[in-house]
Amino acid sequence: MAGEVVLLSTKMSMYGMRANIALIEKGVKFEYKEEDLTNKSPLLLQYNPIHKKIPVLIHNGKSVSESLVIVEYIDEFWNDRAPLLPSDPYERAQARFWANFVDNKASEVLRKIRTTKGGELEAAKKEFFETFKQLEAVLGDKPYFGGDTFGFVDAALIGFYSWFYVYETFGNFKIEAECPKIIAWAKRCMQRESVSISLPDQKVVYEFVLGLRKKFGLD
Amino acid sequence: MAGEVVLLSTKMSMYGMRANIALIEKGVKFEYKEEDLTNKSPLLLQYNPIHKKIPVLIHNGKSVSESLVIVEYIDEFWNDRAPLLPSDPYERAQARFWANFVDNKASEVLRKIRTTKGGELEAAKKEFFETFKQLEAVLGDKPYFGGDTFGFVDAALIGFYSWFYVYETFGNFKIEAECPKIIAWAKRCMQRESVSISLPDQKVVYEFVLGLRKKFGLD
Repeated sequence: MAGEVVLLSTKMSMYGMRANIALIEKGVKFEYKEEDLTNKSPLLLQYNPIHKKIPVLIHNGKSVSESLVIVEYIDEFWNDRAPLLPSDPYERAQARFWANFVDNKASEVLRKIRTTKGGELEAAKKEFFETFKQLEAVLGDKPYFGGDTFGFVDAALIGFYSWFYVYETFGNFKIEAECPKIIAWAKRCMQRESVSISLPDQKVVYEFVLGLRKKFGLD
Repeated sequence: MAGEVVLLSTKMSMYGMRANIALIEKGVKFEYKEEDLTNKSPLLLQYNPIHKKIPVLIHNGKSVSESLVIVEYIDEFWNDRAPLLPSDPYERAQARFWANFVDNKASEVLRKIRTTKGGELEAAKKEFFETFKQLEAVLGDKPYFGGDTFGFVDAALIGFYSWFYVYETFGNFKIEAECPKIIAWAKRCMQRESVSISLPDQKVVYEFVLGLRKKFGLD
């Protein structure tokens, strides 16, 4: 019995998008509940009392938190279809390594691009291209990080694509010129229903970020 | 075929200890190679070109990096004995959540205790006890985080125990008074050969840290 599945998330979160994508890839019926992070719901506080962060997956009344942990859980519970992680232990380890790389290295670089100026921003841009060129090298000539099929690293990374216009605008640079493979990969992912449904439009994300900056007096 | 197994690590690294413990728990024969992090070996640079960090597991010439990824790999490759992760997807997700908690929350708190003074140190100590009380609540009355058997979260956390004397001395506090269950758990783990072999003596770690601080002019 698959039972009741609820996802607590926010539309703009690249971490929340991962869980949304994985559920759609698996064909799981679920209820999506949008959280207001400035006024967290009792449900969020109840089901993720440790971090009080989205995304949270509630499955038959039991919760799973941390986006990559959620994606692995979805992959393991609904293990009869659309595998996200490969079956070979070594390949699984490589997928986990690169998903961690996205979480640590790529997230940090992208945060710097949004929040720095001047010399720091220039250094962040250099680091951005180094990081994404490393990812391009891993992708190689494969259609997906998962090989011929959309997988764990694809689900981990693709949400950032919806923020690319934000990074390009704040950083005053173009990603495609330096990382054409990443853009081609992202566009390929966007042809999947799971991804196109889960990712907001890049301009909508940009307006959201502008709104946040105004609200917190950063502009 | 299990083939040739080499672990690149340093004796003082709580992250390296995880891999060492997992290999011994599984009864895997392996060659341990101590790395000098001030003069990294060509082997380390070759096998972890992305992060250039220990631990690295080299198995039949292929490498796995990131300590928790290594432990999961060991658990999945040698899956016929001493399971570290539970078999149930929900329980697996919980184990991964708490191992991540150790990596993010606990590691960060412990770093603060080693590197701060005054009011910042007092705040770090408060956070330390909050964090370890959360871990005590998860442990509950079970002998191990893994339940009746030593598991993934146990392997992830126990290495920090070898640094407890460092934290207590720098922080001028006693852990056992506030977190007796964690200390009882750690002593229980220390009765396992895998752990007692892998963890250096607490005083040796303290001397090591003093040496580092002297070398970098921090004292």
